[in-house]
Amino acid sequence: MELSLREIAQFVDGRVIGDEGIMIAGVNSLDGAGPGEISFFADRRYKEGLKKTKASAVFVPIEDPSFKRHQVVVSNPELAYAKVAGLFAPPVPRYPGLSEGAIIHESSEIGENVSIYPWVYIGKDAVIGEGAVLFPGVFIGHRVRIGKETLIYPNVTILHDCLIGDKVIIHAGSVIGSDGFGYVRDGSTSVKIPQTGIVQIDDHVEVGANSCIDRAALGKTWIGRGTKLDNLVQVGHNVVIGEDSIVVAQAGISGSVNIGREVIMGGQVGIADHLEIGERAMIAPQAGVAKSIPPGGVVSGTPAIPHRLYLRAASLMSRLPQLNERLRDLEKRMERQEKENLGKQEQS
Amino acid sequence: MELSLREIAQFVDGRVIGDEGIMIAGVNSLDGAGPGEISFFADRRYKEGLKKTKASAVFVPIEDPSFKRHQVVVSNPELAYAKVAGLFAPPVPRYPGLSEGAIIHESSEIGENVSIYPWVYIGKDAVIGEGAVLFPGVFIGHRVRIGKETLIYPNVTILHDCLIGDKVIIHAGSVIGSDGFGYVRDGSTSVKIPQTGIVQIDDHVEVGANSCIDRAALGKTWIGRGTKLDNLVQVGHNVVIGEDSIVVAQAGISGSVNIGREVIMGGQVGIADHLEIGERAMIAPQAGVAKSIPPGGVVSGTPAIPHRLYLRAASLMSRLPQLNERLRDLEKRMERQEKENLGKQEQS
Amino acid sequence: MELSLREIAQFVDGRVIGDEGIMIAGVNSLDGAGPGEISFFADRRYKEGLKKTKASAVFVPIEDPSFKRHQVVVSNPELAYAKVAGLFAPPVPRYPGLSEGAIIHESSEIGENVSIYPWVYIGKDAVIGEGAVLFPGVFIGHRVRIGKETLIYPNVTILHDCLIGDKVIIHAGSVIGSDGFGYVRDGSTSVKIPQTGIVQIDDHVEVGANSCIDRAALGKTWIGRGTKLDNLVQVGHNVVIGEDSIVVAQAGISGSVNIGREVIMGGQVGIADHLEIGERAMIAPQAGVAKSIPPGGVVSGTPAIPHRLYLRAASLMSRLPQLNERLRDLEKRMERQEKENLGKQEQS
Repeated sequence: MELSLREIAQFVDGRVIGDEGIMIAGVNSLDGAGPGEISFFADRRYKEGLKKTKASAVFVPIEDPSFKRHQVVVSNPELAYAKVAGLFAPPVPRYPGLSEGAIIHESSEIGENVSIYPWVYIGKDAVIGEGAVLFPGVFIGHRVRIGKETLIYPNVTILHDCLIGDKVIIHAGSVIGSDGFGYVRDGSTSVKIPQTGIVQIDDHVEVGANSCIDRAALGKTWIGRGTKLDNLVQVGHNVVIGEDSIVVAQAGISGSVNIGREVIMGGQVGIADHLEIGERAMIAPQAGVAKSIPPGGVVSGTPAIPHRLYLRAASLMSRLPQLNERLRDLEKRMERQEKENLGKQEQS
Repeated sequence: MELSLREIAQFVDGRVIGDEGIMIAGVNSLDGAGPGEISFFADRRYKEGLKKTKASAVFVPIEDPSFKRHQVVVSNPELAYAKVAGLFAPPVPRYPGLSEGAIIHESSEIGENVSIYPWVYIGKDAVIGEGAVLFPGVFIGHRVRIGKETLIYPNVTILHDCLIGDKVIIHAGSVIGSDGFGYVRDGSTSVKIPQTGIVQIDDHVEVGANSCIDRAALGKTWIGRGTKLDNLVQVGHNVVIGEDSIVVAQAGISGSVNIGREVIMGGQVGIADHLEIGERAMIAPQAGVAKSIPPGGVVSGTPAIPHRLYLRAASLMSRLPQLNERLRDLEKRMERQEKENLGKQEQS
Repeated sequence: MELSLREIAQFVDGRVIGDEGIMIAGVNSLDGAGPGEISFFADRRYKEGLKKTKASAVFVPIEDPSFKRHQVVVSNPELAYAKVAGLFAPPVPRYPGLSEGAIIHESSEIGENVSIYPWVYIGKDAVIGEGAVLFPGVFIGHRVRIGKETLIYPNVTILHDCLIGDKVIIHAGSVIGSDGFGYVRDGSTSVKIPQTGIVQIDDHVEVGANSCIDRAALGKTWIGRGTKLDNLVQVGHNVVIGEDSIVVAQAGISGSVNIGREVIMGGQVGIADHLEIGERAMIAPQAGVAKSIPPGGVVSGTPAIPHRLYLRAASLMSRLPQLNERLRDLEKRMERQEKENLGKQEQS
């Protein structure tokens, strides 16, 4: 596929400096791009890359006289790049129609233009929205609803009654709707609390590979519209995550945590149960969150504390040996002073 | 299904205050319950919920005059709730009999009333106990034994020779019997140590989704009766976990760790290899355990230290900047004192 | 299978002390071995085990007069053990040929002696090397290349265009080639950056169970020859790992990290994006690496610092309450000194 620079500029609301008529066949990094490709320059750190790139055109934030080929001025070059890359990206390979090797319960409702690969199991009264793609090994439990144009990669398990929105992407191996981890102690044994709620995943959510989202004990575990979860993420029962949040790989969210919108959670973060994480909070990687975070709060460390305080504390942690030395030194000097003063008192 | 309050009270050994004849159709939280449902009141924190609930009946630890409908007095309301919820929970959906879409080796032994979904692979000389349920995509290696009424969710892999007890639950995507991570260095290359042991999982164990339990190098990796593992847990080769222990999500246990009974391990805990974790030990979330823990020990932090000490140390960590300030202040004052004393000595 | 002690000694370049003609039927630990088995003695800590073992023969680093049966002197007994264990280990069970229950695209190329179990999906133009084994539930995307004698356990997903070398082992449930986690913010929403690169895994790599290796945004994510990844490991897009490195379970490597050869990374380590980890660096378990590590660097802690410094700092962390006490004590004494000196000044 090829697009003219004019078409591309229109698509991202940009202004061409150079020849609108040149044809673009793909996107690439400054380093990797060759003739016929468009790249982006977002940041002075890549000034050298801009000089050396062989790209035919570059998205720039302001006209850059040092680049002698074609430019498209846009407010956010990286965003323009992402959008145009989406135009050129190869489509997800679709199985043509419904494989005879799949098992689709007769009571289920399959939308138009759905692609179902072999060895997909679709339970009773399930609904698969128009244009969805289900890869091999996907299990869809009874009464699950999958939205339109949703993409479910191989070996994903979605258990009974869960609700998945439109244009959701669930990467391979993830499990949606496994039982929450709930027991009551009876003497030394653990009695299972039946987990009879569901998982609801709203439109435009993306779930990484081998992640787990547990069903609620009662009610629902709920991932808000546009939120993106990375790989190997754990979401406990009855967790609510607001819209447009980001959860990086291997983070774990304990049961009944309530997370606001546009929260950013770093990799390997752990959040204790029943906390409130305010909207737009930011949690640094590996932080261990043991108490609620107000809206806009930025925290780091285990136990997590405000990020600024953490930075100072962390730098002092590595200087503890010096602190200890200084303390010892003071103790010696103090002893000397005390002795001297005592000596004087005895003299006097 | 409906049960009379009398039947419910008998089932949990409780005493009815109110009308034993009313019919109950389900369980729910205080907030969520409506007429015909029973809930539980375990804790004064939920006093407000008890006042407002629309439940027809509530499990209570002692008679509560503020609740005007029906009460069932039990020693542990949450436990009574869990048990009764089990009565009302919908049964796991069973495939009727053995699917023709499964591959079941002719030498295997399949018990009565087993449910095998399509695309289940059962190897040579495997044994599947009475009443077990195997969902689609389950792989059962040669000579594996699965106990009675054991439940194995979709896309679980159980490799050759592993032994799974009765009434075990293994959630979707978990892997039992993958090779332990063992190599010997030969110059710069890693020579694999063949992992020829097995995994043994005893009765009433529950394994969460996408967890991994590695087979032993020699002998067995062993999960004791009644122990519950959450999602994304890693159990290394030759680990032994005693009975009725709890391992929360994303915890990782290195090879040859020996864990006692009734141990509780928080989320994202890591345990170094070859340690002994005494029975009833408790390990706080995200702790990094670098040495053995005596029975009943409670530890936190990385490296893990006794929990009480940790609490004081952790609170001081965030106050390190102040400690540093105090140290600086003392140094200045010390210098002043020393100068003054020196001045006096010179004067005298 | 049985081998004479002579054959075994030749295989590992060892020297027999005792009867070369005895027959050995297997390997085992000192504790577990019985007659007909060979074990190894690598370390004085196991002196007691050597005395008590019932093994017929033992690999030793130097002749040991205390062991009265047969010995094989080798430079590295554990390595000799691993190699000989490999001879005795049962072979991986192979499906005879290509199952009719698999779906193999007609355009794909399947080498000699390949074993393909049922419910394996092989996409367009894929290449499967001679002698490879693909277990049930394996998904192989379009144009994927699998090398010779590579072993892919059940329910592994390898997405389009990824390249897997010879003699690679990928354990159950792992996902190779899922999309990298890349978005650009557009106001509050996250716009996906198409991930159009690949994953390349070189010869002799082993990937644990339920691990995830994301495809590059552009270019490739690359795991070098001989590197071993444990279970539940996360490798972000565009990561490069050199040859013969070791990554222990649940470690997570953020995007575009460049890791040298022979690096050892402990369990649950996290590495921030775009860092350089020099060759032969060692990273202690649970460390949080926030800046690059020079070749040979050894780091611990979060944020990671040189290991020696960490050891001193960590031991002081748990003594923070005492440090605080000492500080308080000094403050009191200082006040007393200051008062006394002030008193003297006023007196004089």
